[in-house]
Amino acid sequence: MTFFETHRALLDQAVAASRTRGYWSAFPEIASGKIYGETAKADGEAAFKALLGKPFDLGQPGGKTVGQEVSPYGMPLDVTYAAADVATLIKASNDAGEKWGGASIEDRVGVCLEIVARINKQSFLLANAVMHTTGQGFMMAFQAGGPHAQDRALEAVAYAYDEMKRVPQNANWSKPQGKADPLVLDKNWRIVPRGISLVIGCATFPTWNGYPAIFASLATGNSVIVKPHPGAILPLAITVKIARDVLKEAGFDPNVIMLAPDNADAPVTKDLVTHPDIAIVDFTGSSAFGRWVRENAATDVVFTEEAGINSIVIDSTSDFRGLCNNIAFSLSLYSGQMCTAPQNIFVPAAGIDTNDGKKSFDEVASGIATAIDKLLGDPERAATILGAVQNEATIKRVSDARALGNIVRDSSAMPVAGFERARTASPLLLTIDAKNEAAWGEERFGPIAFLIKTGSTADAIALASGSARKKGAITASVYSTNESVIDAAAKAFARAGVALSVNLTGGVYVNQSAAFSDYHVTGANPAGNACLTDSAFVANRFRVATVRRQKAA
Amino acid sequence: MTFFETHRALLDQAVAASRTRGYWSAFPEIASGKIYGETAKADGEAAFKALLGKPFDLGQPGGKTVGQEVSPYGMPLDVTYAAADVATLIKASNDAGEKWGGASIEDRVGVCLEIVARINKQSFLLANAVMHTTGQGFMMAFQAGGPHAQDRALEAVAYAYDEMKRVPQNANWSKPQGKADPLVLDKNWRIVPRGISLVIGCATFPTWNGYPAIFASLATGNSVIVKPHPGAILPLAITVKIARDVLKEAGFDPNVIMLAPDNADAPVTKDLVTHPDIAIVDFTGSSAFGRWVRENAATDVVFTEEAGINSIVIDSTSDFRGLCNNIAFSLSLYSGQMCTAPQNIFVPAAGIDTNDGKKSFDEVASGIATAIDKLLGDPERAATILGAVQNEATIKRVSDARALGNIVRDSSAMPVAGFERARTASPLLLTIDAKNEAAWGEERFGPIAFLIKTGSTADAIALASGSARKKGAITASVYSTNESVIDAAAKAFARAGVALSVNLTGGVYVNQSAAFSDYHVTGANPAGNACLTDSAFVANRFRVATVRRQKAA
Repeated sequence: MTFFETHRALLDQAVAASRTRGYWSAFPEIASGKIYGETAKADGEAAFKALLGKPFDLGQPGGKTVGQEVSPYGMPLDVTYAAADVATLIKASNDAGEKWGGASIEDRVGVCLEIVARINKQSFLLANAVMHTTGQGFMMAFQAGGPHAQDRALEAVAYAYDEMKRVPQNANWSKPQGKADPLVLDKNWRIVPRGISLVIGCATFPTWNGYPAIFASLATGNSVIVKPHPGAILPLAITVKIARDVLKEAGFDPNVIMLAPDNADAPVTKDLVTHPDIAIVDFTGSSAFGRWVRENAATDVVFTEEAGINSIVIDSTSDFRGLCNNIAFSLSLYSGQMCTAPQNIFVPAAGIDTNDGKKSFDEVASGIATAIDKLLGDPERAATILGAVQNEATIKRVSDARALGNIVRDSSAMPVAGFERARTASPLLLTIDAKNEAAWGEERFGPIAFLIKTGSTADAIALASGSARKKGAITASVYSTNESVIDAAAKAFARAGVALSVNLTGGVYVNQSAAFSDYHVTGANPAGNACLTDSAFVANRFRVATVRRQKAA
Repeated sequence: MTFFETHRALLDQAVAASRTRGYWSAFPEIASGKIYGETAKADGEAAFKALLGKPFDLGQPGGKTVGQEVSPYGMPLDVTYAAADVATLIKASNDAGEKWGGASIEDRVGVCLEIVARINKQSFLLANAVMHTTGQGFMMAFQAGGPHAQDRALEAVAYAYDEMKRVPQNANWSKPQGKADPLVLDKNWRIVPRGISLVIGCATFPTWNGYPAIFASLATGNSVIVKPHPGAILPLAITVKIARDVLKEAGFDPNVIMLAPDNADAPVTKDLVTHPDIAIVDFTGSSAFGRWVRENAATDVVFTEEAGINSIVIDSTSDFRGLCNNIAFSLSLYSGQMCTAPQNIFVPAAGIDTNDGKKSFDEVASGIATAIDKLLGDPERAATILGAVQNEATIKRVSDARALGNIVRDSSAMPVAGFERARTASPLLLTIDAKNEAAWGEERFGPIAFLIKTGSTADAIALASGSARKKGAITASVYSTNESVIDAAAKAFARAGVALSVNLTGGVYVNQSAAFSDYHVTGANPAGNACLTDSAFVANRFRVATVRRQKAA
């Protein structure tokens, strides 16, 4: 049985799910021994520890040695990687791409699906690698870095497969000529890849954000060079290694996918982005570098997820406690280091109507602050939710932000059992007037949130959606018992290209984006020029070449 | 009955045709009174003449007066157009786009289809307008400028409709939680346009090249500013006028589509391309300006068709006379001013095997030259095929090209009955050695072709496909009785992103590209970054905004 046949039923389900977009998931998010094997957790941790302090062998062309990853939980990983120069990488990638680009759709898609299946088996290893590069809590590192990322890989493969299959392989073209014989051509079409696809990873969600691009490009026949963030190499190194193993088994040159690791003090990204042989660039990261990539890439085919400023508009609620708890969790999860985390919470100066009666602006503020305190009251649970802070700069940013408004809830370092040197910060909550746009109108990445005193809900929607248009936003959230407010928010945020959540008071959070259902990033505001994943994310990664042949007389 | 209902059956057929890609056409290419009405031809000519020497009223915001079109057949059109400044155009387009972007898919697609249907009724008027701006012969102006362009408009609408309809309108998302109640969200999705779409027209095929972009952008909810080439305004002015009439009837602001005419000495294109409110740019034209557009557009969403150098590789044939006649027609049609016209004909130095025995390199050259002479022997037929030369620079280019090789067949001016001052040139055919890449390796737009003496067919395929990779190509053609040669050519040209025609000796020509079947331009070499039309041509013209709502308990 070929890889394609093995995974065919799953692929068909994935394609169907991408079109109906109800809940569907291929890879279980529950880190249970019953699903992943009784020893999987221990095995994953052991496998992770076995990688530390050693060269990580990918079997790629060599050159320099790089690798300076330090866990946000405090210890250096001391993993090193061989790093070839750009010319060597490009040549090897081009060479490997020849056969890969000429393979059948089914052969390529089968290989991709087998890679994802094997990655799934290594979910506990990846959880450790993601935890100790990004700082995510273990459970989040398992879910977002493992099965959720794998779902997103599958989603990209499903879109790519579906899009390639829309192109017929051949047709008989017969044009009537009145009473004369028709003009007849035999036509056939082949999918041709663009060339080399460069995937630039980020430090916070290296697999979740990287997999859609990696697998969309592989499935459509491109060879892929993965450029990990220097702070989060290991999760993508493990991924690339698994992929290379499968490629080799399937008879392809493993250089179809290669890792291009670097150190922060000697980055190679710009040399890759501007190389004329790089035909596709996928980028996740800061707006400043994202803009540079868009403006300087040698290719026109560039997909970005950059930064934005996400907002919550509170108008009224029938579940005030649920509102406070839900927002508290959204602000705390991974210490606000998600591209989907809210920063700005707009609340009318006159307060809001709730099921507990009228709540003043200050009562809303203290309600959320109290909910955060309760949520993080148990240190073990707090550590799980908050995780650690990926970058030292975020700690400084939190510190500086204290001066931007009135502190309702201060940020503090939080203990993490077993990791005394973990870099941590709980949410900082500030109140501020809407006029002070200099404060709330900039992205303050990390556990920093503003409760913004606003004239009216209409003003709040206008400010939040206006900010999204100018500075970008990936998510928005509105709380209201008034349908006309919800309609107005839906319209305004849609036009601003922001995904809107309405009245989240239960176990779904605005930060969460589900593969196969939510369109993550719209591509319609400065937070990114692409969506992960829709048709546009895959359709331009390949092209169609026609051969038409006059029918022999 | 709504416009959508009126045209629904046609739309369904068009969607089906775009997937099966056999022969299909919605708009009859035969300029017959039986189809278009007995008086249609005379009416169209009269309507055209009635437009000459007058202001063309589009009912748009005014400003300056522009318009300096001169027919390649010799007379100035003396049509003038009101030209608003860029800020006025942008404001009006944004304002009109609000309601258009919020309309239903069906309402927008219905309007588009009605516009195309009304354009079809004006095919004879458009034929005259296209003829006297581009220089195309009347029959070509009718077919390519009329029904074929309309087919391409319909194709773009069909792709846009199909792509938008792949996004579900809503879904119930229910995530199991073990023994607890599931998490449930009601989700809905809306299509949001990108903003203002700028379509930059060309001087040779203003409607055929412009319609796919205009209609793809309109259908997906963008407002459109059409920037015609200053030498070919009238065909697009007529188009925009018809579109504005339909929009108004349907209750929309007609500024959903606007014309931005200019004169060659005061171009506005750069001001539009670099305006931050222009969200999509479609460009047809030269490589030099195309590159500028790609590098300087404020938006990332840029679709181009630029220039290329198209090749024919002759290896062997079972129909030498058919080969010569077919190539003669391809070189003569519209005096080589098609983006699909061949320039370089590679022939082995040792000659080729044919059904008439071995033919030497010189015999192949003279066979094609003689076929051109015969084809153009009747002046009336010659005028119909050659048409006139759109740009004076092309005449100079032909003149200069004489020095580049040995003249097998010289170019000459050709009489056109009724148009004594027509600017004309028959094909110039030169022989040259493959080593002289400085001559054949550049685009020589117009009726200039090289017969290139090549070592072997393998060399010829390598040179032609290599040239396509470097300089771009839209079409290629190969003649061979050897299947392995055909396979090698198919592979090489596919990888170079060129559509290949094989053994054309009858009534199909390499220059011709059929809507709903041929993918015109691959987007995979420098001749253009996009294909007209495939999924990628439409999928990024709109985005998807999610609204997800916690199900009330």
